[in-house]
Amino acid sequence: MPKQVDHRERREAIARALWRVVEQRGVRHLTVREVAREAGFSHGHVQHYFASREEMLSFAMDFASEQTALRVAQGLRELGDAPHPRAVLRLMLTEMLPLHTDARATSRMTAAYVLEALHDKEIHARARDSLAQGHGLVEKLVRQAIADGHIDPGRDPVTETNLLLALTGFTTFLELDVIEPRDVLTAVDAYLDRLFTRSDEG
Amino acid sequence: MPKQVDHRERREAIARALWRVVEQRGVRHLTVREVAREAGFSHGHVQHYFASREEMLSFAMDFASEQTALRVAQGLRELGDAPHPRAVLRLMLTEMLPLHTDARATSRMTAAYVLEALHDKEIHARARDSLAQGHGLVEKLVRQAIADGHIDPGRDPVTETNLLLALTGFTTFLELDVIEPRDVLTAVDAYLDRLFTRSDEG
Repeated sequence: MPKQVDHRERREAIARALWRVVEQRGVRHLTVREVAREAGFSHGHVQHYFASREEMLSFAMDFASEQTALRVAQGLRELGDAPHPRAVLRLMLTEMLPLHTDARATSRMTAAYVLEALHDKEIHARARDSLAQGHGLVEKLVRQAIADGHIDPGRDPVTETNLLLALTGFTTFLELDVIEPRDVLTAVDAYLDRLFTRSDEG
Repeated sequence: MPKQVDHRERREAIARALWRVVEQRGVRHLTVREVAREAGFSHGHVQHYFASREEMLSFAMDFASEQTALRVAQGLRELGDAPHPRAVLRLMLTEMLPLHTDARATSRMTAAYVLEALHDKEIHARARDSLAQGHGLVEKLVRQAIADGHIDPGRDPVTETNLLLALTGFTTFLELDVIEPRDVLTAVDAYLDRLFTRSDEG
């Protein structure tokens, strides 16, 4: 196996171990030592791949974002050529919510990262960039949908983008079993139905 | 000072110190020792008020919920007699978002608590109860607003409640400075305008 690939695979294995620590033991156990134990590596071995706790955490977060993007890309391929913007937005929104195992892991990692960002400027900047990028992507889709007549031209694209992204707030209600996954999907669909003047294809 | 009051005040002072630890240092420092240091008490003194880390955390969370409820109650008084349901919902929603210092502290405490709930059954049950109670309150308001003709009777009260609460998802975007407070309020108002068929008073 080429060295580059092996290096990347090791880092990904450590990132997955880090996600498991967040999920099963909690963010307060998010140390290089605990992650190394979970990954089945020595402390020194993890330090060989990550110079600091912050670097390990940043990589795990970037990896979580990448995995979410990959799931969305896979979903887009399944939607076929020129999918309806309603279907694209629905896919992006639902993949950001903890509705299945993989999405749950990345969603929890994001929640942990946001809390870390509150008292760490570098993490704040990285998390902000990542979230702003997602915001930009959704805004582009919304603007195009307005231009193409799928969304009422009277709607403000920035406000619509903000409202769509705010719906990621279902996360907490799903994690605490206050709203059932089925009811979340019903609500997301009701929301998108109202946003799209023609929802024939979505 | 009566002993009961003093006891309560000490517990509140410890809870506020705990909030500061979450805010300034991060959840991984959420130990009895660190909270004691932040509060300016000895470890043993904090242990006198809280038998365990979990008990301290639960109290701090309940206290955060109470403080939010108090802010909402205060806001309701300012709205005068028989306020429009749109104004009531707007108040509840905005007080759940980190839009000012007090709300930021309670919002961060909630985020930390939700992460703890993922791997602690007791905290999960408590956090669930608290969130379900809030959900019930909003649902009651929505049902009444439908009955009173403020909201289109064609709307499903459960779906509308779920969507309103999902808007707490602005929290992450506010914390990471991706969406400005002003734009959050614009979006919340646009949302409520569409929900209420008559928004003349809200």
